[in-house]
Amino acid sequence: MGLLIVGSLAMDTVETPFNRVDDALGGSATYISLAASYFTAPVNLVGVVGEDFPKKYIDLLENHNIDLQGLQVVPGEKTFRWAGKYHYDMNSRDTLLTELNVFSNFNPVIPYKLRKNRFVCLGNIDPSLQLRVLDQIEKTDFVVCDTMNYWIEGKLDDLLKVLKRTNLLIINDSEARLLAQEPNLIKAAKKIRDLGSEILIIKKGEHGALLFADSIIFSAPAYPLESIFDPTGAGDTFAGGLIGYLHKTQDLSPENIKRAVVFGSTMASFCVEEFSTKGLEDLSYLRIKDRYRDFLSISRFDESE
Amino acid sequence: MGLLIVGSLAMDTVETPFNRVDDALGGSATYISLAASYFTAPVNLVGVVGEDFPKKYIDLLENHNIDLQGLQVVPGEKTFRWAGKYHYDMNSRDTLLTELNVFSNFNPVIPYKLRKNRFVCLGNIDPSLQLRVLDQIEKTDFVVCDTMNYWIEGKLDDLLKVLKRTNLLIINDSEARLLAQEPNLIKAAKKIRDLGSEILIIKKGEHGALLFADSIIFSAPAYPLESIFDPTGAGDTFAGGLIGYLHKTQDLSPENIKRAVVFGSTMASFCVEEFSTKGLEDLSYLRIKDRYRDFLSISRFDESE
Repeated sequence: MGLLIVGSLAMDTVETPFNRVDDALGGSATYISLAASYFTAPVNLVGVVGEDFPKKYIDLLENHNIDLQGLQVVPGEKTFRWAGKYHYDMNSRDTLLTELNVFSNFNPVIPYKLRKNRFVCLGNIDPSLQLRVLDQIEKTDFVVCDTMNYWIEGKLDDLLKVLKRTNLLIINDSEARLLAQEPNLIKAAKKIRDLGSEILIIKKGEHGALLFADSIIFSAPAYPLESIFDPTGAGDTFAGGLIGYLHKTQDLSPENIKRAVVFGSTMASFCVEEFSTKGLEDLSYLRIKDRYRDFLSISRFDESE
Repeated sequence: MGLLIVGSLAMDTVETPFNRVDDALGGSATYISLAASYFTAPVNLVGVVGEDFPKKYIDLLENHNIDLQGLQVVPGEKTFRWAGKYHYDMNSRDTLLTELNVFSNFNPVIPYKLRKNRFVCLGNIDPSLQLRVLDQIEKTDFVVCDTMNYWIEGKLDDLLKVLKRTNLLIINDSEARLLAQEPNLIKAAKKIRDLGSEILIIKKGEHGALLFADSIIFSAPAYPLESIFDPTGAGDTFAGGLIGYLHKTQDLSPENIKRAVVFGSTMASFCVEEFSTKGLEDLSYLRIKDRYRDFLSISRFDESE
């Protein structure tokens, strides 16, 4: 069975101190699917675009063996658009524009054949839509959920319902503090896991990620990148690499989830090295494994005397 | 030969959301020496206090086998005092009071016998004083230097002279960005190492630390503490554990410096669990090694398929 990915597809205009792109391919489902496509197949994308969505983007996704039977193309409407500007330190950004367009009426319909998928990745969209997706799946083995401060603040009730049906929640450190109302991340993690999702990953950007699973805590390093060209999509790419590797291996032990976290970080490091999805377009599994080994070497130390 | 530690001794008044202590033992040389004392001997402390410095603090240091022949006690003067208040998230603090007192005229005099020490740890004091210390040492094998934004902004010329004579510089992430005038930490590290210190450690608080040595980069995790009672002295304690372990092993290979970084992090984790120096007063090497092993387990992951 395949890996079901639900989220947004967007056309992004991104400005950084180094460059600018207009109407580039973006969206959570896009990044998740591209990253996962290097690990497993079939990757089934469910999302919506307008009739202005360029053919070349469809081709790009299909060339990565991403199955688009769940992609709705709505005639006469425009694709979701986002514009943002990153500052010099790349850790902060301003959203300049959010045009929901076709996304404002999105009702995710899971094609009948895909309802048998048991691995589901819910990209960062309205939790009420995430719930509708879960309602259509016959039986899930593993549900990964991404969310953001916007939904924690505005749709907490629905989000809490999603968390009760989620196996692995991915959020960043400020979102974790917000959701738990607790500044200490270790305490926050306990509170959040009590909400339902037994496995939790807290992303910390340039500081790596923390995994909480069973009784273990795993601290994954970040890749020491000298040049970050465009952080857009890094979090989604992380989720895609992670769920792609888990779907490939079908091993949900904490030890294997650790590896999946590092593969997620590996994919995110490729993502931010180039604009938009460029860094994810021409990878090979060999190159990915090489960088995975770099992660091993930067975090390894020995027993002491 | 021994380990020479030069820095401040202070009486700290610290307020956190959980508690408050008045005139507690503090100062960079204090924390460095206490942490190092668990690894090696003799630890030779050089510093200055006033005649109000409590006998019980002298006893405490001596009970940890810290050699105080380099401690000046100035009659009729008062010990350096610092007061600060931590906020709820423990990542930010306000300095409420800095009374230099006896420290304002401190002229570090290294007793003749101690000038043969080849391992030197320069605690965070005025770089012009750090230079005076180095001028008195006959020959150094390994110089560790700690500093802070105050000296980077106000005494850069002297600091740059110190760095040319330093083997290992320890600073935190915001200080690294300030010193290098570069927001990306990996690029900043390159620039800083070009200033003289061939080995660099960037501390990142709750996010661990980065080590740059030879061509390696090592990312050390932080210990996942649920309760941080008092962050005061954590950075000095880190330096003390690090230099103590290096002095003990006399092994300056990158692989061993990695271990030293983790021992530094280990000691810092004990430090912040209690107020003032309390967390460093009753440790055993066995307990320290146990926690070192915890660091191994939170950062370890395997090769992938």
